[in-house]
Amino acid sequence: MSPQKLATRNDYKVLVDKYDTFLFDCDGVIWHGSKAIPNIQSTLSMLRSRGKRLIFVTNNSATSRSDYVTKFAKLGIQAKTEEIFSSAYATAVYLSEVVQFPPNKTAYVIGGSGIRKELQEVGIATMGQDDKAPVDLSTLAEIEPNSDVGAVVFGIDFEINYRKLSNAHINLMYNPDCLFIATNDDRTLPGGKHVYPGTGSMLSSLIHSTQRTPLVMGKPNKPMLDCVMQKYHLDPARTCMVGDRLDTDILFGIRGGLSTLCVLTGVADEASILDPSAPQVTYYMDSLGDLSELEMTL
Amino acid sequence: MSPQKLATRNDYKVLVDKYDTFLFDCDGVIWHGSKAIPNIQSTLSMLRSRGKRLIFVTNNSATSRSDYVTKFAKLGIQAKTEEIFSSAYATAVYLSEVVQFPPNKTAYVIGGSGIRKELQEVGIATMGQDDKAPVDLSTLAEIEPNSDVGAVVFGIDFEINYRKLSNAHINLMYNPDCLFIATNDDRTLPGGKHVYPGTGSMLSSLIHSTQRTPLVMGKPNKPMLDCVMQKYHLDPARTCMVGDRLDTDILFGIRGGLSTLCVLTGVADEASILDPSAPQVTYYMDSLGDLSELEMTL
Repeated sequence: MSPQKLATRNDYKVLVDKYDTFLFDCDGVIWHGSKAIPNIQSTLSMLRSRGKRLIFVTNNSATSRSDYVTKFAKLGIQAKTEEIFSSAYATAVYLSEVVQFPPNKTAYVIGGSGIRKELQEVGIATMGQDDKAPVDLSTLAEIEPNSDVGAVVFGIDFEINYRKLSNAHINLMYNPDCLFIATNDDRTLPGGKHVYPGTGSMLSSLIHSTQRTPLVMGKPNKPMLDCVMQKYHLDPARTCMVGDRLDTDILFGIRGGLSTLCVLTGVADEASILDPSAPQVTYYMDSLGDLSELEMTL
Repeated sequence: MSPQKLATRNDYKVLVDKYDTFLFDCDGVIWHGSKAIPNIQSTLSMLRSRGKRLIFVTNNSATSRSDYVTKFAKLGIQAKTEEIFSSAYATAVYLSEVVQFPPNKTAYVIGGSGIRKELQEVGIATMGQDDKAPVDLSTLAEIEPNSDVGAVVFGIDFEINYRKLSNAHINLMYNPDCLFIATNDDRTLPGGKHVYPGTGSMLSSLIHSTQRTPLVMGKPNKPMLDCVMQKYHLDPARTCMVGDRLDTDILFGIRGGLSTLCVLTGVADEASILDPSAPQVTYYMDSLGDLSELEMTL
């Protein structure tokens, strides 16, 4: 079935009635950088007032869920920690609930404070944050596997260095059963006018040096969705994934068997949505903010 | 023709008489870390006294050729700067002689002082060495393309960081005609008991983020050999490449149309040399030091 454009109040109503839960990507859907998409606050209030469950799903692993709540508040949106599902939190859920990470083991983390915070909140100790000392050929051999390390967790880390990469490498190579988990594999990271190397690019170093394949949690990969579905006991038939990118958000929804809605306020344009070789969305519309028209009809 | 084992004084004599020039890999052939291979000094003296040209070919880009001369001297081996050909020097030769790098352009270098020194010696200005300031999402957009940058040169850099990778990325992406050159693509770097991420692994980040393919100078790639052959006007039929690794040293020699000699003092063992699916060496022998037997017969 080709993508259906939603453009009238009736279209919006049919959409909203059909689903109990909406999963949202944030950047390009809810906001652009530090600016809310017009009418987004009223759209979200309207959905809440109709008893819909809202879950914000982000590949960002640098920010913890509580920091996200603060960001939402600054944009005039009330959100609860439980409504936010980041790739860092998904990693914590996966380690603590899916693989039952042994309590005597530690996660070696390449990543920011967001991911450490999420792991620590589920009781998983982390190391790596203090690995800042320079290394050279004469001191390299000091970097040895540590049998306490049960997983290497990789997310965006603006303080990445050769010592951290070597520690992660050596544990993945020589430490039996050491898990290899990446929060996401985004190739690039948007930063104003340009894009910069993303988690997936930095991760390539470690994939290449260890010849190991990490489990990637974030969109468009399935593990994060499995965590979301399991955590909230969602019915895929009554859940819709809303995003602005076909290759991450929409593919993520499709892989999870969900309906999908692509908005035109971010990366995808109408031509790419209608391209039959792209992941096929269920619905698309100009802006999620347009749903606020339903507010008056409640 | 299957690999021929050299084991007698006569075998050694035939080898030495057949070639005017010997190219040597260093680690595993001339030395192991900081220890010379037994009898290597007398082997090299014997070859010199017979008028052979010796060239030491290394993928190491961290050390300059003059630092190499010092390392040789410590092991009791006299060597001249002109006899040493590193991937860093090959990069300098390539930029200055092959592509005639414009004098008003600068090379953005991710790499150690060895490579900067080689580039500066052929008159190429370098930048990148001072890029140590932290970066985060709020300051990322400050990293912009610089129209002075004519090439990104990538070698092993123990001080690699996100700012350097972003600078290299942004110049490769948005700076027209910016060259992308890597000194080598060694996956791992030996460091005592273990191996650590090598230049090729670190380079993967940038290949992944830019989706560009670098020109790789070092073994087993051809550009370094082209530089050696051109610099010394060597006759491939009278040149033998000596190494301990089939996938780098020997492949490098084969690709250049040279005869090859694999020694068993490093990575390759006899079984791997005789494996018909591996790069096929011309000759192999236990140790290059064994050629010193010829000394007495001169």
